[in-house]
Amino acid sequence: MNYNIAVIPGDGIGPDIVEQGKLVLDKVGEKFGHSFEYKEVLAGGIAIDKVGEPLPQETIDVCKKSDSVLLGAVGGPKWDNLADRPEKALLGLRSELELFANIRPATMFDQLRDACPLKDEIIGDGGLDLVVVRELTGGIYFGERGRQGEKAFDTMEYGVDEIKRIAKVGFDIAMKRNKKVTSIDKANILENSRLWRSVVEEMAKDYPEVEVNHLYVDNGAMQLVINPKQFDVILTGNMFGDILSDEASMITGSIGMLPSASLGSSKLGMYEPIHGSAPDIAGMDKANPIATILSVAMMLRYSFDLEDEAKAIEKAVEEVLEDGYRTGDIMSKGMKSIGTKEMGSLIASKL
Amino acid sequence: MNYNIAVIPGDGIGPDIVEQGKLVLDKVGEKFGHSFEYKEVLAGGIAIDKVGEPLPQETIDVCKKSDSVLLGAVGGPKWDNLADRPEKALLGLRSELELFANIRPATMFDQLRDACPLKDEIIGDGGLDLVVVRELTGGIYFGERGRQGEKAFDTMEYGVDEIKRIAKVGFDIAMKRNKKVTSIDKANILENSRLWRSVVEEMAKDYPEVEVNHLYVDNGAMQLVINPKQFDVILTGNMFGDILSDEASMITGSIGMLPSASLGSSKLGMYEPIHGSAPDIAGMDKANPIATILSVAMMLRYSFDLEDEAKAIEKAVEEVLEDGYRTGDIMSKGMKSIGTKEMGSLIASKL
Ligand SMILES: CC(C)[C@H](C(=O)O)[C@@H](O)C(=O)O
Ligand SMILES: CC(C)[C@H](C(=O)O)[C@@H](O)C(=O)O
Repeated sequence: MNYNIAVIPGDGIGPDIVEQGKLVLDKVGEKFGHSFEYKEVLAGGIAIDKVGEPLPQETIDVCKKSDSVLLGAVGGPKWDNLADRPEKALLGLRSELELFANIRPATMFDQLRDACPLKDEIIGDGGLDLVVVRELTGGIYFGERGRQGEKAFDTMEYGVDEIKRIAKVGFDIAMKRNKKVTSIDKANILENSRLWRSVVEEMAKDYPEVEVNHLYVDNGAMQLVINPKQFDVILTGNMFGDILSDEASMITGSIGMLPSASLGSSKLGMYEPIHGSAPDIAGMDKANPIATILSVAMMLRYSFDLEDEAKAIEKAVEEVLEDGYRTGDIMSKGMKSIGTKEMGSLIASKL
Repeated sequence: MNYNIAVIPGDGIGPDIVEQGKLVLDKVGEKFGHSFEYKEVLAGGIAIDKVGEPLPQETIDVCKKSDSVLLGAVGGPKWDNLADRPEKALLGLRSELELFANIRPATMFDQLRDACPLKDEIIGDGGLDLVVVRELTGGIYFGERGRQGEKAFDTMEYGVDEIKRIAKVGFDIAMKRNKKVTSIDKANILENSRLWRSVVEEMAKDYPEVEVNHLYVDNGAMQLVINPKQFDVILTGNMFGDILSDEASMITGSIGMLPSASLGSSKLGMYEPIHGSAPDIAGMDKANPIATILSVAMMLRYSFDLEDEAKAIEKAVEEVLEDGYRTGDIMSKGMKSIGTKEMGSLIASKL
C-alpha cells in the first residue's frame, strides 16, 4: 500500500534524525511491499525564520491530508524570547489535528542498563517497561488564561467526554499489556481531578479485567523513583503527564531512545522522539536517531496497523545495540562509537 | 524565655511522633534555659470525629495566639470519602495563619546512604543537600474552582506581590547556603508562570551574588533524578512545589527523616514532618520520630532564632544515627532496631 507522510524536520537535530527515520521506513517499504511518500513542511523555529510564524497554515493543511506526521524536534534558545515561540507549533498541531492522546512508553533498554540512574535493586530483573498515556488537547494547556492588573491566571479544565476518551485509550492499551491502570490526579485539591477520578472509576467498570488504582500526583512522582515497577499504564492529564512522562523516561536511563505517538480519533497520528532539538550538535552527525526510528515503528503500529513491520524495526534496533554500536549520548566503555547516519544505516540493514 | 506552642498531634502516628518532639524540646529548654508551654488542639480526622469538622475555629484561634505550631500528621483512609476531608485542616491552617512559604530541605543522611534509590555515582561525595522553597497560599490550591455542566475547572493564579514575597524567601535562604536559586515554572505554556519568571528575574537584580536559573517543571522533574546535585534552592509555586518537593525528598532515601517549616511574615510558623500519618502503625511505637524532631529544630531556628539550640538537636540526631540506632523504616543490616520512644529518648539524652 501507499502511505502519505507529512514530515516536519523542525529545528536543531530534527533534520538529522528525521532523515534516518525515512531511511528505515523506505527499507521497511522495500522489504514488506509498501511505499511511503513524504511531503516536507515547516514548523517551529525554522518556520519563524522562513515565513514569520511557527505553524504556517500550509503545514496544518498538509498534515490534515496525510496519513500520518513524522516530527523531528522544534525549538531552541534562538527563539526563546519571542512571543510566538516554536513550541506553539506543537500545541497548534496537537489541537488542529485533535491528537488528544499522547502515548509515551518509558522502556529501559537492557543494553543501556548502566545509564539508568536508579539502583539495580530497584530495577530488578526484566528492566523497566511502562507507558504514560497523557491527555494532550485539554487541561491547563488549553484553558482560558490572561492577566488582570498585577495578576496572571491559567485555567485547568476538563469535561466528562474529554476524560472518557483518554481513559478509554489508557484502558485499551492496558488490555494489550499487563492490565493495570494507575490514574494520577490531585483529587484531594482540584475539582477537575475529582471529575477525572470519577470518570475513570466509571470507565473501569467496563474493563473488569483491568486493575485500577489512583494516586495523587505528588505521590506518583515519588513512586516513580522508589518503585517504578508497580506501573503498567499511567493515565493522566496534560500537565501532570508532561511532568511524569519526563520523569519516567529519565529513570529508564534511555531518554535518547524513547519514541512517542500522539493520536486522535482517526488513524492520523503524529510521531516524534521525546527528546529535544539539541541545537549544539545539529548537523554534526552526532544525534541519536533511535528515538525517531522507534517513533516510526509506532507510526506503523498505530496509524497503519502494520504490527509485523513495527516489530521488525524494534528488533533491528535491539540487534544493533546487541552488536555494541552506540551514538555518543549512549556510549559506554567497550562499545563502538558511531554517528547518526551509520546508526540509521545499520538499523536499516538489519531489516 | 518562655514560648507558647500550639500542638496538633492529628491522626495516625501523629500523637506518637509529636510526643517525642515535645520531649526533645523540653530537654533543650532544660539545657539552654528556655521553657515551652504546649497547648494541644484538634485538627484533621480526629477533629472530624470529635467535633464534626477538620479545622475547628478554636484551633485556629489558639494557633494564632501561639509563638509557633507543631503538627504531627493529618488524614487517613478512614476519612477519604468525606467532602470535608482532614487535608482541609492543612490548607485552612496555611491560609488562616498566612504561611506562604513552605521550606522543605531534602537532605541525604550519610548514614542512610544505602536507602537512596539513586546510584552512588549520581550522589557522589557529600550526599545530597537541597531545599525546596514552595509558595503555599496561592496558585491552583486557592484559585477559583467549580463545575459548569459536565465540566470542572480550577484556576492557577499568581499576583506580583505573592511571587515577590516567596522569591525573597528563596533568595534569602540561598544567601545563607550556596547562593544558587533554580526557579521552576512552566513559562512556555502558562501565563502565571511567565509572570512568575519575570518577577523572579527582577528580584535577582537585588541579589547579584546569587546565581539564578530557570527550568521548566518537566525538565526539573528530570534533573532531580539525573543530576540532583546541581540544585541548592529550588524556588517554585504551590502545585509544582508539591510535586517536586516530594520527588526531591524521595531521591534522598531519607523521607522518614525530613522536616518542614511553613512560614509567613511574622515569626509564627508551622512545623511538621513531610511524611504522612501512617495509620497502619499508629500507636505501636514503630514510627520514626526523627522528622518531627528535626521539625522542632527548624522551629527553634526560624520562629525563635535559637540557632545553637537547633544545631544541637541536629547534632544529637546525627550522633544517634552514628551509634547505629534505627527505627523500622530505616533499619538495615547490622544496625540496632528500636522504637519511637527509645529513639526520642536517645536523641534527648545526647543533648
Ligand atoms: C515543548 C512543550 C510545550 C511540550 C509540552 O509541555 O507539552 C513538551 O514539554 C512536551 O512534553 O511535548
Ligand atoms: C495533603 C495535601 C493537601 C498536601 C498538599 O498537596 O499540599 C500535601 O501533599 C503536602 O504537600 O503538604
